[in-house]
Amino acid sequence: VSRSGNPKQFLSFFSGETLLQSTARRCTTDRFSPPIISTGEEQRFFVARQLDEAGIEPAAILLEAVSRNTAPAIAIAAQWCLAAECDDPLLVMPSDHLIHDVPAFHAAVFAGLPHAEDGSLVVFGVPPTSPHTGFGYIKTAATETQAVRDVVSFTEKPDSERANEFLEEGGYLWNAGVFLFRPSAFLAELRRFAPEMAVVVGESMKCPDLDGKFVRPDQVSFDKAPAISIDRAVMEKTDRAKVVPMDAGWSDIGSWESLYRELPHDSAGNSISGNVFTTDVRDSIIRSDGDQAIGVIGLSGVACIVTSDAVLLTSLDRAQEVAMVVDNLRARGDSRADEPAKVFRPWGSYEVMDKGEKFQTKRIVVSPGSSLSLQRHRHRSEHWVVVNGTAEVTVGSDVKVLRSGESTYIPAGTAHRLKNPTDRPLHLVEVQCGDYLGEDDIVRLDDVYGRR
Amino acid sequence: VSRSGNPKQFLSFFSGETLLQSTARRCTTDRFSPPIISTGEEQRFFVARQLDEAGIEPAAILLEAVSRNTAPAIAIAAQWCLAAECDDPLLVMPSDHLIHDVPAFHAAVFAGLPHAEDGSLVVFGVPPTSPHTGFGYIKTAATETQAVRDVVSFTEKPDSERANEFLEEGGYLWNAGVFLFRPSAFLAELRRFAPEMAVVVGESMKCPDLDGKFVRPDQVSFDKAPAISIDRAVMEKTDRAKVVPMDAGWSDIGSWESLYRELPHDSAGNSISGNVFTTDVRDSIIRSDGDQAIGVIGLSGVACIVTSDAVLLTSLDRAQEVAMVVDNLRARGDSRADEPAKVFRPWGSYEVMDKGEKFQTKRIVVSPGSSLSLQRHRHRSEHWVVVNGTAEVTVGSDVKVLRSGESTYIPAGTAHRLKNPTDRPLHLVEVQCGDYLGEDDIVRLDDVYGRR
Repeated sequence: VSRSGNPKQFLSFFSGETLLQSTARRCTTDRFSPPIISTGEEQRFFVARQLDEAGIEPAAILLEAVSRNTAPAIAIAAQWCLAAECDDPLLVMPSDHLIHDVPAFHAAVFAGLPHAEDGSLVVFGVPPTSPHTGFGYIKTAATETQAVRDVVSFTEKPDSERANEFLEEGGYLWNAGVFLFRPSAFLAELRRFAPEMAVVVGESMKCPDLDGKFVRPDQVSFDKAPAISIDRAVMEKTDRAKVVPMDAGWSDIGSWESLYRELPHDSAGNSISGNVFTTDVRDSIIRSDGDQAIGVIGLSGVACIVTSDAVLLTSLDRAQEVAMVVDNLRARGDSRADEPAKVFRPWGSYEVMDKGEKFQTKRIVVSPGSSLSLQRHRHRSEHWVVVNGTAEVTVGSDVKVLRSGESTYIPAGTAHRLKNPTDRPLHLVEVQCGDYLGEDDIVRLDDVYGRR
Repeated sequence: VSRSGNPKQFLSFFSGETLLQSTARRCTTDRFSPPIISTGEEQRFFVARQLDEAGIEPAAILLEAVSRNTAPAIAIAAQWCLAAECDDPLLVMPSDHLIHDVPAFHAAVFAGLPHAEDGSLVVFGVPPTSPHTGFGYIKTAATETQAVRDVVSFTEKPDSERANEFLEEGGYLWNAGVFLFRPSAFLAELRRFAPEMAVVVGESMKCPDLDGKFVRPDQVSFDKAPAISIDRAVMEKTDRAKVVPMDAGWSDIGSWESLYRELPHDSAGNSISGNVFTTDVRDSIIRSDGDQAIGVIGLSGVACIVTSDAVLLTSLDRAQEVAMVVDNLRARGDSRADEPAKVFRPWGSYEVMDKGEKFQTKRIVVSPGSSLSLQRHRHRSEHWVVVNGTAEVTVGSDVKVLRSGESTYIPAGTAHRLKNPTDRPLHLVEVQCGDYLGEDDIVRLDDVYGRR
């Protein structure tokens, strides 16, 4: 369901809101300033659209041309704040985690606030409920009752034996990747422990490219930053760390098992969505995103997840091993390893519904008022059938309007553009024919989104 | 995978041949006459094409307009033999069973032959390997060593307790539904025990409709025949039954579990086909007929069967409960209960690949030299894109030739015909648009296959 090309922060598992939207909404009271979003160049339209849909106006969307892990990303955000002459504490949150109890989250944040204001680097720690080997552990020097504790040490993903020892010993918290500190305080520690990174990040933000809300650091400088996490670069080394316990219904939704635990269950302990029939199924998650009917008989503790291009079937307690499937697909050069079945674009979305020898069929949705680039394909011809809505199509020098049930043909090599001039979504079926049908057979002649 | 609209005798699970083809091929030595096939009117093109593909020329294909179970079907075949002045023993075989050991099967048949020639009704019985409750049991008056035994009694599908008793007691055989008798001997017993049926079947075959190899009994008479099995109507009552043990690797392939047992397994005990990745999966059958990638992790003893329109996931030992899924679909009016994803027609096949609001997309294959009926739809328009091959299309009074990458449009209400004039298969994508897209929106104006 989630792929590197459409990661889970952009998906909705609860309440209709995506994880990104829920994360942004968590901090919309008047005690918070508008959010700064750090994301990749490729994801900028998703982020902008999702915030827009949620009615949340960001202060800035910081774009990385290449991913460099959390330390450089956070450093850029800190630089951006200082450049805007703001040194208020910066609350850093991953956008793909779940927090059920927002008041408890706020209580933790505001318990940490005075310490952040005094120059500490505050990290929030989740009371562990199992010897999970996928998280970092923070050892605290504290009794259970203290709201803010000193940090003794950080341990990245321990093995199972050590994780069990941590739980027995007590005083350990899971590192939730949530931080609170003044930008100046963080950058000072960065200069102390990762001086080269501090220099190149500082250079990259001297003259950033400003494009509306989009802010691009200078790429040549940013490229020099090492890819390293904030934990490794700063938190494990600094003596200014404080930790605040945060018992707020947190989950990283790192696997179908952890998602299963967060979802509501029926009386048989199942979480079911889509066109599903079950007999004697217990403690399982069954989910279909498409039209396929799913019948399940006589199983318990399984995840069965069906998309239009893939089926995942796993014992729930081994759901984290899905990486095996992804690695296998990638090793075969199968685009499903990274690309979602439904691909989102600034103008809408497309989904391949059928693929055969020398042809493929796509379902295309163009958002109201949106337009694809003026483009040309060398190797494929295209047939567009409007199935719902109204399209304005340009083929060569002709411009015409197509309504439901009407179609047009675009020969290979001919410049064309597709536009939805209405205020309702436009649905098309596209049949592509040709010897080569890769997405990279595209020459963009003119793009309202500035893509090449 | 199998549906009432495409039952398992037309499918291939082993060796590339369908079960029907394997059944017919089982009796192609010079000791057998050409086969007579009994089937439904709806299935006649499947049967004819599959026999043709296997290079087997049937003596006749007897067509029932309505299904009346095995007794009337076999009675019609017996009548047809007598009308052809042939009273040689008739070997009756279901077309959807598997027999691995054909020489052992032949040995059993020829052991029974002298008895059939002497006027006995010979039934073949499989030595039971489990207290299966889905089969009929034949009690024999015999020691194990006798090749041909007398029948003591028949018991239809016993409960689990009785089946266990049968196995302990010994001398019972499963009724495999395979029979050998002279047509005159069978009809004599039918007149004794089911005289009304004998009369109406006799009347229906006085003047059958002959259409090449297709033979249609008079429908008005045949409709009066009660729907009853040969076991109930004759075998349980006659005193002329003999049973021949048949230990020939027989399976009725009645569930995914019994199919799993017959298929070859890898070293982990799995039978896998399609685009499948597994980790720690054992004793399971995983099968994908389409393009979806399947990942399976940490399970054993399951069946996971994926078609383009459905997913079945079951504990192998409960695979026979798939009827629950079918019943649920049927109760909802879902055509997947009966119609296969890929629908075969006399001219080729079609498969719905995408279905949305007011449209659907089909992949159509037209066999070399074949032609669809001249037809018209009231509620839908159609767009045809030739993706491979060459089509001759008639739209209204226009006739034109379309090649790969070319398309045409058929407005609602316009008469049209699609033809493949070449000797290679023709592949099209059809996009249908309209408020109603049911298969029954068709007016056939002229059909080479005589359909209305």
